This record gives sequence, structure tokens and C-alpha cells, in this order.
Amino acid sequence: MTGGHRPSGRRKQARLMATLCRPSVSVPEHVITMEETLELARSRHADHPQLPLALRLIENTGVRTRHIVQPIEETLKHPGFEQRNKLYEQEAKARVPEVIQHALDDAGLLPSDIDVIIYVSCTGFMMPSLTAWLINEMGFDSTTRQLPIAQLGCAAGGAAINRAHDFCTAYPDANALIVACEFCSLCYQPTDLGVGSLLSNGLFGDGIAAAVVRGTGGTGVRLERNGSYLIPETEEWIAYDVRETGFHFLLDKRVPTTMEPLAPALRDLAGLHSWDASDLDFYVIHAGGPRILDDLSKFLNVEPHAFRFSRATLTEYGNIASAVVLDALRRLFDEGAPEDRARGLLAGFGPGITAEMSLGSWQIGAGA
Amino acid sequence: MTGGHRPSGRRKQARLMATLCRPSVSVPEHVITMEETLELARSRHADHPQLPLALRLIENTGVRTRHIVQPIEETLKHPGFEQRNKLYEQEAKARVPEVIQHALDDAGLLPSDIDVIIYVSCTGFMMPSLTAWLINEMGFDSTTRQLPIAQLGCAAGGAAINRAHDFCTAYPDANALIVACEFCSLCYQPTDLGVGSLLSNGLFGDGIAAAVVRGTGGTGVRLERNGSYLIPETEEWIAYDVRETGFHFLLDKRVPTTMEPLAPALRDLAGLHSWDASDLDFYVIHAGGPRILDDLSKFLNVEPHAFRFSRATLTEYGNIASAVVLDALRRLFDEGAPEDRARGLLAGFGPGITAEMSLGSWQIGAGA
Repeated sequence: MTGGHRPSGRRKQARLMATLCRPSVSVPEHVITMEETLELARSRHADHPQLPLALRLIENTGVRTRHIVQPIEETLKHPGFEQRNKLYEQEAKARVPEVIQHALDDAGLLPSDIDVIIYVSCTGFMMPSLTAWLINEMGFDSTTRQLPIAQLGCAAGGAAINRAHDFCTAYPDANALIVACEFCSLCYQPTDLGVGSLLSNGLFGDGIAAAVVRGTGGTGVRLERNGSYLIPETEEWIAYDVRETGFHFLLDKRVPTTMEPLAPALRDLAGLHSWDASDLDFYVIHAGGPRILDDLSKFLNVEPHAFRFSRATLTEYGNIASAVVLDALRRLFDEGAPEDRARGLLAGFGPGITAEMSLGSWQIGAGA
Repeated sequence: MTGGHRPSGRRKQARLMATLCRPSVSVPEHVITMEETLELARSRHADHPQLPLALRLIENTGVRTRHIVQPIEETLKHPGFEQRNKLYEQEAKARVPEVIQHALDDAGLLPSDIDVIIYVSCTGFMMPSLTAWLINEMGFDSTTRQLPIAQLGCAAGGAAINRAHDFCTAYPDANALIVACEFCSLCYQPTDLGVGSLLSNGLFGDGIAAAVVRGTGGTGVRLERNGSYLIPETEEWIAYDVRETGFHFLLDKRVPTTMEPLAPALRDLAGLHSWDASDLDFYVIHAGGPRILDDLSKFLNVEPHAFRFSRATLTEYGNIASAVVLDALRRLFDEGAPEDRARGLLAGFGPGITAEMSLGSWQIGAGA
């Protein structure tokens, strides 16, 4: 597939292959530390029989700080699903355009160069999706395709990359804009008292990410192959219970064990590409929690250091759902670009349980 | 693009072009007639100052019968968003697999031949989406891509066709399964008393449709070009207000006027393909309401008879949202296939206000 031995083949593929450019990321201004999270858990759930377990699980996340769209006092109130969802819309409209503008600038494109907007978000629901407002507000063409995805949860960041890749494969001169907007704090449910909920209250954060996939040119990850994998019979392990009070996040305690069945799926995809998933130059992995990263390191036989971008996202922002993979990739760019043609793996994990996986190699675009 | 003058070019394109096969459609067993709808409006809204207008608008829809998942007495109750959404899930699981099986049979494929499932529905919300359950339940491969779309409303049927087309363009040997599952009756809101709501109560029906887009082979519409168009500054004309009681459908009275700006978009797309949108062999159009069809007939200068499939869907089933275009296409198949290479236009319209448009020509597959 990479065709590195045939110069003429390489030129043709370079032209045909989509490049995922530097993501732009923004987190809100309100910060909550782990110490504050633990103190809140202690004071609000003093009588909870499993409080010690919940505190230990929160400590184990390694999440030092999270950023949220409202002060914590407001976050802890539940003004009703309608108000929450209106706040989602208001905050998204206030914050998303700037992130998109940076992503376009980093890719060297104008709004009129974009052919499809893939907007992923599972923490608010709007119809029409924010894509319609963005097209009107930011000067995208009226003919821009809209692909809003609300139901893939944390896997949606990977899905957005993969569907953008497919789109640019179908239309090699096209450009795709990916936006992941997640305000997990707006899904806080004060009445959910299971250990999984208490853990989630200390794990998830808010964040917005955007990135362009250029059909031609650009510096970043040249997308070469993608795939999905659903672990059989795990539909209920990560799910929303949809109620009058909004989305209630259900997190089964078996979720941290999922890297054992998913590592072979990553290996298989790499194998189809004649690559070895244990021996790549960079890894951009969804940081669902610390055990996800530890286990994947073990089952893929990869040094923990290889997951430093994901771990940094988790430590500084918490699990920002579909935006994690884009933030981890942003950190790879910011560390200093890998060598030209360095080979890497990107993967998002989420409800289903679904993995959205991608293989690509570093490309330095003309003029970059 | 059609390359009709170059036999070698034609062969290449026939291989590369995706074919939308015969849709399978199912409507629920509970039927409500227009007379019953009008009688209900009269009895429930006797004091409504705009009752005569609402009755006239309902009569003008031409919707003779609608099919709904529960008896009308149950439909008129609102047991809460949670119960409604659980019912959505239960009914979808009970009814969707059979429709998919028929669509696969009509396309001559097995579940293991499917590479992506595009599931569109705006009348219930699940995470994970029904795609995960379908993969587990019906024996689709664990590597099947999942593309659930909840936020494109009635335009999502067209969007599903177009994204399936794009996917098969990117992967010419792939097959896509499209599913549209709409239980509009589960979004009935007894407290919504605007004229738009009263009209909607008499317009929308329930239905499920599924169709396969085959990357190679198959009989049906060979998809050649697609496009989207957003009418500027109309985001609020068709929208959901998301509340504790679920999705509240907002329908602006200006919506029926939208064919005037959309007809040029359809003309432009056809023009890019060197086709004349006024002079095609078949039309498969979203039957949002009677004026949509009347106006499009006028603005495209096409005989009303050309929209007979859409009109039959509207008359017999009401507006079944994203499933309309698939049902109208099913009626085209059932009337007797058009001539080989007959040229046609498909279009879905929905919130945004967005049009999802497609051009294709009739193809009779080998062995069909």
C-alpha cells in the first residue's frame, strides 16, 4: 500500500491520500482539580457504602485537572434537560468557531475549501445539528455536506477521522473538517449513585477539538487504512439511559478489560497493511482511563512511553470523550513532528463496544 | 461522467459505480385514517381559535391513512420521554431485522457481505445506536462500520444514500446497508398547540425502510453524483426543541415555500452532470407535504405525474420522515423497472433546511 519502492506509484498515492492536519483544541476556563473532586465526593457521598472504592478509582485515573464550561457550583445543579441542552447549544456556539478557525489556519485552508463537516458530539442534542449554524455563521459553502454523529460516544473522534478519510478517498480533491465538541459536565446526574457514576464524575471533562483532513497536500498523518471493530455482546457496557433528566451515562465495571479483545483487532488491521502493531513510530489512542492505556501497552507489547500523548490528555483534561484522540494527536504535533514517513496508529474506543482504528504515516507537505 | 460514448470507459465506470437496490419497506399494523385524524382534532381542540385552519391544512395534506406502532388511544398518551424512548427501542428491535433481511435478499447479499451500516432515525435516541445490536443479532461482521445519524431529520434518507454512495466510491468492492427507522407517532406532544403542531399531528406516520447499495452488480439506481444544499438562514424553520418531555417538533409556516430556492440547487447539480433536471426519466422526492411536490413540479417544470411515487407514499403512509425517499423508490421498482439507463433524480429535504440530492441511472445487473 505505501508503495515506497516505486517512485511513480508513490507520487500517485501521495496525490490520492488524505492527510489529517494539526488539530486545534480548546478547553473551558473553569478548572477542577483532583483534590477538589475527591473532596466533593467525600462531602456529597459521606454515607455511601462504596465511597472508599469510588475515591480509590478516582485517584487511580490520574486525572489531575479538568476544564468545565461552568463553575463547579453551577455544574453540580441540575436545572433540567431542557436547560442543560440549551446551555450546550449556547456554549457550543460561543466556543466552537474559534477552534475551527485555528484548524483551518493550521491546514492553510479557507471555509470555502471545505467539502464536508463531520461534527461529533454525544453530550448535547440539536436538530438541526450545529453544522447548519456553522455553515451560515462561518461562511462555508451552502453545498458543504453535513455529517453529524451523536451516537458513537468516545469512539466518534476515530469515526470522524475515518469517515473523513473515506470521503477524501472517494473525492481525492476534497477536504473534510472534523469537529468534536464535548461538554461532559452537562451530563452530570446528581442522582446517579452507582460506583461507575461516581467514577465518571471524576473522570470526564469538557473540550473542543477540530482538524482538517486535506485530500491533497498538508502536513500531518497521511491516512492509509482504517477499520472498525465491535466486541460481540457488549452493547450494554457503555450506554446512555435516556430519561426526562437527560442522558444518564452507564459504565460497566468490565469496560477496563476490553483491551484484551481489542488488541487483536488492532493487530489484524496492521497486519492487513503489512505493518506490525507492536512496532510503530507513534500511537494516538483514546484515553478512556488509565487501565485502557496500561493494558493496551501490555497486550500490544508497546512501551508505555509510546502513549504519552494520550496520558497527558487524561492527566490535564480528563476523558474528553470524542475529542481525546484529536487532543492526543495535537500533542504529537507539538512535541515536534515525527520523521517523514514515520508510521502510526490512531484508535478511538466507545459504546458498542466499538473501536475506530486508523493507520497512517507522517507526511510533510509541500511548502510546510 | 456517464462516458456513454467510450465503451472502455463505460465498462470501467460500471464496475466502479454503486447501485442502490430495491428498498424493503414495512409500516406498522395500527392504521389511522384522515377522517379519524380530523375527528380527533375537532374533539380535542374544539376551543382552539385556529381549528378551522388546522383542519383545512390537514385535509390539504392528502394523507388518507397512516400506520402507527401503537393503537391511537395509546399514541395520544404521553408516558414520559424515558418510556417513549424505551418503546422506540423495543419496537425497532421487533421490526427492523425483518425489513433488513428483505433488503439483503432483494440485493442478493448476506449480512457478511455488508461493510457499513448507515442507520438513520430522528424519532428515538439510543447510545450505542441500534447498529451495535443489529451486528450482534443478525450476524454482520464485527468489522462492519457503523454510521448512525440522528440529526438530519427527513433529509437523512437522502444523506444515507449519498454517504453509502461515497463509501462505495472509496471502496468499490464494498456494500452498504441503509436503514431508516422512524416512529414519528412516538414524538406526539399533546401540549403543543400551535397550528404547525396540529398540522404535524395529521401529517407524520411511522415506517421502516432498508436498502442495500452494492459496490458492484445489482439492479436499481446506479448512483453517479450526489450533493447537498443548505438554504441560508433557515436553521429554525424545521427544528427540535429538546425538553424533559422529549423532542418537540417545530415546523415554521415558511417551510412549504422552500422549493423555490431548492429547485435551482437541483438544477445546478444536474447541470454539473450535463443533465437537465426538468427532463429526467424518474423522480424520487421527499414527500414532506403536498405543496412540496406541487411547487417542485412547477419550479422544475416537471409533470406532476412524475412525482406519483412520492405522492402515493404521502397518501398511504403520511410523511414517514427519512424513510419517504426509500418508500417512493420502492414504488418505482414495483411499478415495473424503468428502461435500462433511464436517468433519475433522488432528493430528501429536512432540517437545516438541507437538501440531499442524488443523480443516477437505471441499471439492470447481471443475472437479474
